[in-house]
Amino acid sequence: MNPAGSGEFTRCATHQLGDGYNMRMRPDHVLDIDARHARVATWGTPPNAAFSLANRIAREYTRSTGIAEPSFVPARAPGRELQLPETRATGALIDRLGRIAPTRSDDIARRALSLGKSYPDLVAARGERLDRATDVVVRPRTQAELEQVMALLAEENVAVVPVGGGTSVVGGIEPLGAHDDQPVVSIDLGSLSRTVDVDPISNVATFEAGIRGPRVEASLAPHGLTLGHVPQSFELATLGGWVATRSAGQGSLRFGKIESMVAGARLVTPTGVIDIDHLPAHGAGIDMREMVMGSEGTFGIISQATMRITSRPTHIRFATYLHPDFPTAARAARTLVQAGIRPTMVRVSDTAETAFSLGGSIPTWLRSSMMRRAVRSAGLGDAAMTIVLTTGTQDEVRLIERTVDRHMRASGAWNLGPVPAHHWYRARFVQPYARDLMMDRGMLVDTLETAMPWRSLPEVHRDVRAALESTLGVDRTIVGCHLSHLYRDGASAYFTFITRVQSGLELRAWRAAKRAVHEVLSSHHAAVSHQHGVGTMHADLYRRATPHHMIDAMQAVRTTFDPNGVMNPGKLFGSSALVRPVNSCVER
Amino acid sequence: MNPAGSGEFTRCATHQLGDGYNMRMRPDHVLDIDARHARVATWGTPPNAAFSLANRIAREYTRSTGIAEPSFVPARAPGRELQLPETRATGALIDRLGRIAPTRSDDIARRALSLGKSYPDLVAARGERLDRATDVVVRPRTQAELEQVMALLAEENVAVVPVGGGTSVVGGIEPLGAHDDQPVVSIDLGSLSRTVDVDPISNVATFEAGIRGPRVEASLAPHGLTLGHVPQSFELATLGGWVATRSAGQGSLRFGKIESMVAGARLVTPTGVIDIDHLPAHGAGIDMREMVMGSEGTFGIISQATMRITSRPTHIRFATYLHPDFPTAARAARTLVQAGIRPTMVRVSDTAETAFSLGGSIPTWLRSSMMRRAVRSAGLGDAAMTIVLTTGTQDEVRLIERTVDRHMRASGAWNLGPVPAHHWYRARFVQPYARDLMMDRGMLVDTLETAMPWRSLPEVHRDVRAALESTLGVDRTIVGCHLSHLYRDGASAYFTFITRVQSGLELRAWRAAKRAVHEVLSSHHAAVSHQHGVGTMHADLYRRATPHHMIDAMQAVRTTFDPNGVMNPGKLFGSSALVRPVNSCVER
Repeated sequence: MNPAGSGEFTRCATHQLGDGYNMRMRPDHVLDIDARHARVATWGTPPNAAFSLANRIAREYTRSTGIAEPSFVPARAPGRELQLPETRATGALIDRLGRIAPTRSDDIARRALSLGKSYPDLVAARGERLDRATDVVVRPRTQAELEQVMALLAEENVAVVPVGGGTSVVGGIEPLGAHDDQPVVSIDLGSLSRTVDVDPISNVATFEAGIRGPRVEASLAPHGLTLGHVPQSFELATLGGWVATRSAGQGSLRFGKIESMVAGARLVTPTGVIDIDHLPAHGAGIDMREMVMGSEGTFGIISQATMRITSRPTHIRFATYLHPDFPTAARAARTLVQAGIRPTMVRVSDTAETAFSLGGSIPTWLRSSMMRRAVRSAGLGDAAMTIVLTTGTQDEVRLIERTVDRHMRASGAWNLGPVPAHHWYRARFVQPYARDLMMDRGMLVDTLETAMPWRSLPEVHRDVRAALESTLGVDRTIVGCHLSHLYRDGASAYFTFITRVQSGLELRAWRAAKRAVHEVLSSHHAAVSHQHGVGTMHADLYRRATPHHMIDAMQAVRTTFDPNGVMNPGKLFGSSALVRPVNSCVER
Repeated sequence: MNPAGSGEFTRCATHQLGDGYNMRMRPDHVLDIDARHARVATWGTPPNAAFSLANRIAREYTRSTGIAEPSFVPARAPGRELQLPETRATGALIDRLGRIAPTRSDDIARRALSLGKSYPDLVAARGERLDRATDVVVRPRTQAELEQVMALLAEENVAVVPVGGGTSVVGGIEPLGAHDDQPVVSIDLGSLSRTVDVDPISNVATFEAGIRGPRVEASLAPHGLTLGHVPQSFELATLGGWVATRSAGQGSLRFGKIESMVAGARLVTPTGVIDIDHLPAHGAGIDMREMVMGSEGTFGIISQATMRITSRPTHIRFATYLHPDFPTAARAARTLVQAGIRPTMVRVSDTAETAFSLGGSIPTWLRSSMMRRAVRSAGLGDAAMTIVLTTGTQDEVRLIERTVDRHMRASGAWNLGPVPAHHWYRARFVQPYARDLMMDRGMLVDTLETAMPWRSLPEVHRDVRAALESTLGVDRTIVGCHLSHLYRDGASAYFTFITRVQSGLELRAWRAAKRAVHEVLSSHHAAVSHQHGVGTMHADLYRRATPHHMIDAMQAVRTTFDPNGVMNPGKLFGSSALVRPVNSCVER
């Protein structure tokens, strides 16, 4: 640790992983239908930092590619709203739903719940009309209302799309029926956001599924506890969505992926309610929690979950390391984790991402002077940056920090001090807002992620980059990658790509790129997804990657819970009936 | 840490968790059919330590209860073998199997594979004849042979019972058909014991399912790696059996339960072979590994598994603590784990187990002098002992040991030094042998285990003890308990009970006790099992404890893999056809 820099950030000692989200969002109303509608084409109202990040990305893109920055292209002329098809729900259905729970079928509500935050969703949100929209929005206020709504919809054979934060980037809330004429009801879980119980003795807490990250942490903080699950969607996404998609937070190295936090759950299915008791571990048959996690709403709606919680860290420290190249940095991260050293986050950027500093983690002064000088003088032309966050008690943090530093130096790293890491930390929720601003400038910006054993990382990294560059144009495309979730036996790899596309051809280019990447992931047996889920977008790849007996088995589970297949049609397993999914799908 | 004692055990620095098993077993032949036959009524040839342990238990039992030690009752008159019913397999079936893989239908082979190591199995093995036995034993030598055998048996609609080490204590290998006339073929996996691949980069290794603990460790040691899975069945049980029953090893606090080690697997089902690729983590749908772990042979046969492995610890250290009572000791263990302190094992004995020192972990000189004096002088009449094992690198061990010691002293514990812990360690594989010797003396000795959140531990502990004492006779029954697997959100509890029973009434007493315990576990929502599995013994409790929709879903999975239900009938899910299971079952 750089002792000078180390002192500088002692003031961050009181920060928690979950602090610093966009304070301009009204925490309690951010999932209201009107608030959802206001941000249907964007992640939300961009904070100031998003504008400066977008400016920097645009400048860097021009500098790297020589392609002039395009002029500003506003998302839509003011006052012109996205047009929707007629609702297919009958008045009788709407009435019956309305007698159970708050129900809306006006255009504002339907528009608000019809799109997630995938690239195709954002493109669609900038268009003139949606080919397909949800027909009714129901927002139950209690578990009982949810159960009654579900019973009615099962009886009426209506498609059910559960919506938490609506932040799916893989088409997870796409309003699809099992066939074109089936009405689709989106169930807005935003009102089911209570903290049911906090048990400091057993270190578990039970929450309703519609609770968001800031509220989770706010209800645990008075007990000195934390869930510690902080994905980039922290401020908007819901606990139920995280569980349904096997989410991973930035602190996964210390706190684990969401799967390791789920201790029990309630699943509301078309055939009834299933309560899975909290057990710390068991030796009795198949793990029922694992039959719910990752089910993406296709088995039922996760209406509440009992989560493992832990002591709230009192201290946080930042460190940044520079290795001569990405393979060396990846090896250092691997051996660190395999030695059992457990900081809260280790984030290894490849050479392209380090140079481009996509995340805004390297401040301009550092990039333009100190770092470039260092790169030149040390022959670090292929330098790869690693950001390390350590949280815990003061003693823990000191010890881990020291152990990490010793390990990194021994692996040939140069200690850059805490500043770049702290800049990344402050900007860690800003990128999705900056992406909207980049789209305003006519840029295609998207991310994708996977996971694989350490042994196949070099090939997957090389081939995914090559697939993106060759399909999008190597002269105009920047592809960066970082390893953000590390395991003893492998890592996740998160790719960001930016390219210029001609207006109107965005989706064609994007689909070609995704198809090429899917070929690579399939041939290397890499994960279909590490944390974003399958949705509609990866359903084809998922079917290719999964033994067909296993697909059959999971379909059999689904049929048990949902005999008519009303739950979230087209997601995860895809569907042969869905030859033409409408809003966002690779196959389109 | 007691500094004097600490130095004394530096010589243990080279020990591994897996060392010190019964060296009198020939490691490579211990699963031969003849070797299995030789120990059909016992765990195996008892080492010397088992005799002294059994003597000590008998003395302590007499001292505690005032009941005189019974005279020696040999298991069976020499030369009188257990009689079997006629085989129901046709000559044609035996011939066809024999053309694929080594096949036997003689009495020795059938006897060798018909019984596990549950209390009812051991009682049955001491009887005159078995009501039910397996009809054929097939021992495939390759994956291809196994697949061909499975295809033939599926085609012929013959019941298939996979047998690994044959150490199930819950009736997991009971030779049951779906109905009384269905022939049963036991598949002996002892020859499928190869190490397929060791990948030190990704820290995974692939083994065939029939490999036993010592062989697993022997194949990893040259790479400086370990699996770290050391249950009491280490020397006999197989990897496939551990995976199929969700086993937990003594070092679970450091190395995790078997579930956290399984990275990939191959499942040979009646409808085909399913390969689950190794991924460090994923966000794509239901976890397929979790659809195999705990399946107890009812979905198919786990024929190989890819396991997460880690650096082999170079150092091991022992510590023993004495708290004034069990609640205080349990609280100290809970807060230790919740603070993130991770020794390799923390084993908390309750007052009864501490006093009785069932495990032989407290040497006589200590029990009779130092400890009793301490108990008297400090008013520790309800003292509870905690054994701590720490393994890792020298630095790790030192640090963890120091942190544990600080925590334990702060919780009011008295540091007894390494001796009792080291005695426990040396005797940790001896208890099952001593149990056989206790049965020779006409004693009923059995264990059972569960898991629960920390909050319900006091009630579960109290009520299970009461259930055992009231059914078996409080004046003649000793019940001890220890917490052996700790989690942030709960713990496993392992009960040992010893009682005098009149010859011929053993099973009646045992069944009454089990029924009473099942009532307690069910009413407290405690785990049906933490590590032993369900088998036939706990199938009733499992059905009561599991939401019926979930049972239906798992049955649907089973039907997908095994449409005719030939796989291990009667296990896990039980079966309405099995009104009268034969060798070992609570319901009998």
